[in-house]
Amino acid sequence: MQSIPVILLGAGGVGSALIKQIVANRALHAAEYGVEFTLQAVCDRDGAVITLDAGLDDPTLLDIVDYKTRKGRLAAYGQGGPQSDLVGIVDIAGRTGAIVVDCTATEATVPALLYALDRKYRVVLSNKKPLTMDQEVYDRLTRAGATGGKRSTPRQPLTRWETTCGAGLPVIVALNRLVAAGDPVTRIAGAFSGTLGFVMTGLQQGQPFSAVVREAFDLGYTEPDPRDDLGGVDVARKALILARGLGWRMELNDIEVTGLYPEAMSSLSVNEFMAALPELDDHFRTLVEAAAAGGKVLRYAATVAGGRCTVGPQAVDAGSPLGRLEGTDNLVEFHTQWYRPAPLVVQGRGAGTDATAAGVLAEMVELAAGL
Amino acid sequence: MQSIPVILLGAGGVGSALIKQIVANRALHAAEYGVEFTLQAVCDRDGAVITLDAGLDDPTLLDIVDYKTRKGRLAAYGQGGPQSDLVGIVDIAGRTGAIVVDCTATEATVPALLYALDRKYRVVLSNKKPLTMDQEVYDRLTRAGATGGKRSTPRQPLTRWETTCGAGLPVIVALNRLVAAGDPVTRIAGAFSGTLGFVMTGLQQGQPFSAVVREAFDLGYTEPDPRDDLGGVDVARKALILARGLGWRMELNDIEVTGLYPEAMSSLSVNEFMAALPELDDHFRTLVEAAAAGGKVLRYAATVAGGRCTVGPQAVDAGSPLGRLEGTDNLVEFHTQWYRPAPLVVQGRGAGTDATAAGVLAEMVELAAGL
Repeated sequence: MQSIPVILLGAGGVGSALIKQIVANRALHAAEYGVEFTLQAVCDRDGAVITLDAGLDDPTLLDIVDYKTRKGRLAAYGQGGPQSDLVGIVDIAGRTGAIVVDCTATEATVPALLYALDRKYRVVLSNKKPLTMDQEVYDRLTRAGATGGKRSTPRQPLTRWETTCGAGLPVIVALNRLVAAGDPVTRIAGAFSGTLGFVMTGLQQGQPFSAVVREAFDLGYTEPDPRDDLGGVDVARKALILARGLGWRMELNDIEVTGLYPEAMSSLSVNEFMAALPELDDHFRTLVEAAAAGGKVLRYAATVAGGRCTVGPQAVDAGSPLGRLEGTDNLVEFHTQWYRPAPLVVQGRGAGTDATAAGVLAEMVELAAGL
Repeated sequence: MQSIPVILLGAGGVGSALIKQIVANRALHAAEYGVEFTLQAVCDRDGAVITLDAGLDDPTLLDIVDYKTRKGRLAAYGQGGPQSDLVGIVDIAGRTGAIVVDCTATEATVPALLYALDRKYRVVLSNKKPLTMDQEVYDRLTRAGATGGKRSTPRQPLTRWETTCGAGLPVIVALNRLVAAGDPVTRIAGAFSGTLGFVMTGLQQGQPFSAVVREAFDLGYTEPDPRDDLGGVDVARKALILARGLGWRMELNDIEVTGLYPEAMSSLSVNEFMAALPELDDHFRTLVEAAAAGGKVLRYAATVAGGRCTVGPQAVDAGSPLGRLEGTDNLVEFHTQWYRPAPLVVQGRGAGTDATAAGVLAEMVELAAGL
């Protein structure tokens, strides 16, 4: 049995779901993979629970989940304490063979991730932020330094980030394999937001924009401020990760993002914004009708093609995989030399704490078992 | 730069395409992965070209492809010779870090594959046969022996077989990750034959069965004897590989296969069979109409659920991913705890020498670079 030390950054939604799944699958991982995950540290924004022994025991782990679910801060947790230095925690709690798992949504983890990689620890990210900062940070996180030759930058086997684009869907692995096989990717097109998928489906069915956004808001499908979804920046981060996966060198600012509301509405309060939504109904009705006149449907899509990355409402062929998509599923089309005219398509739930945690756990097993 | 010795079993369609892709991507593999593939042996049914030096040079490799394309046997090739013992070739040509690639369609490679694994060489299979023989052979190929505990049979990191189900589509990796995460898979449903997809699409559009089979035959979509497709055994092998991937222990005989022609037509010549096809037109028209009456469409599907594996014409919901499929694409739905009600779906070209070779090459890179 291999014992794999785990340092978990982020103990909220995905982090808590991951802890529960690790505990629930101990027998499976032991029997099928000869692997046991021992949590050496669980950290949140300003607190941590750390052990230097053989990992936190399961009752403690489940108690942490229960505590976090009640919105507790680990700094105030019985066995926990304050933390202001994730590098220090990786230094103290890390050991040979460790996996550092980043389930946060902050750039603040980057120094700890780089420190872990310097130590040859492995890293699994569901956090998009570290991969969408400067290109140089992406390179350091996903590739080892040059090992010979003029531009020899072998991808390194220490980092996995499948769940940054579409949660547990096999999107990054599909992309990586196309790249590894030298199959030229001419276009990636995808829907990467369940919330915006819901909105576009509603528009397509003839609902006014204001009504469908209100419905999504009331159902809890949107962030507390719906502009965090409607602005498209989260989708842009995913597009950037895909573009960089193709070897393109670009920054978040290079993504051409069209949000679903005009800049002028950025300064409103949430209530004012919701009240002003009907002003946009005509605009979107016109877009949907124009698309339909050309045999197309409107999707909120990310497109990576011809050196450009565009994110926004796009009219796509009604008969294409993206055009047939309805509801909150994510969908990615890869158009390549070997996948044409019909693309390689991956589709399914692209968000949710459990689906994301399951994707993270699968990558932890892959790293641990050398799969 | 890592030099990876490769022993290639099978130099026909997929094998030849793989050689061309290896040669074409040398600069990419060196620059991006620090890897160089050196072919130590290329084998066909009864011949082989072997070198004990640093691999066959590219002009020789491309000459072998050209020679094989003209249906030449390697036994009669200039630098080649007869072979009757693949184990002996792995023994002679193999060396530390080798990858043995099986692009044949025969069970005859199994002793050589097992010998390679005993030596800790890696194995990449596009050949379904070794994984669809006795369960024990599957176990030996895909898992190492018990390393502790009562039933500890860790999956071993030495073998990859993505291209056995849907060529380069990320089907096996999706399945393996669901299993690794402990996400209970309640149902797998898929269309795994481009030929049968073409036939079912034609039926759905109102064409008589005999006409659409004749069209597929004339277009070269079918095997020389179309019954090799219509019988469903190739689809059954894929279903068995998926079921075994879930941990189910079963044999090819346990798959419930319904072919698209009655047993009585097995003894006919190909010409007689084609001439007799119109006898089946009414049967299939009835099936399509019955499905349509229930809001369904007819697909040639494999279903793995509830302990049973069934392969045959099945009426599926018209609005489901499988129901929306048209043409020759493959499609797989994974229904699980975290993917419901909508399944995780992978779709795209599921056959073809280049797409399959690209899938094999990607797995070779993954093994070589530790990805």
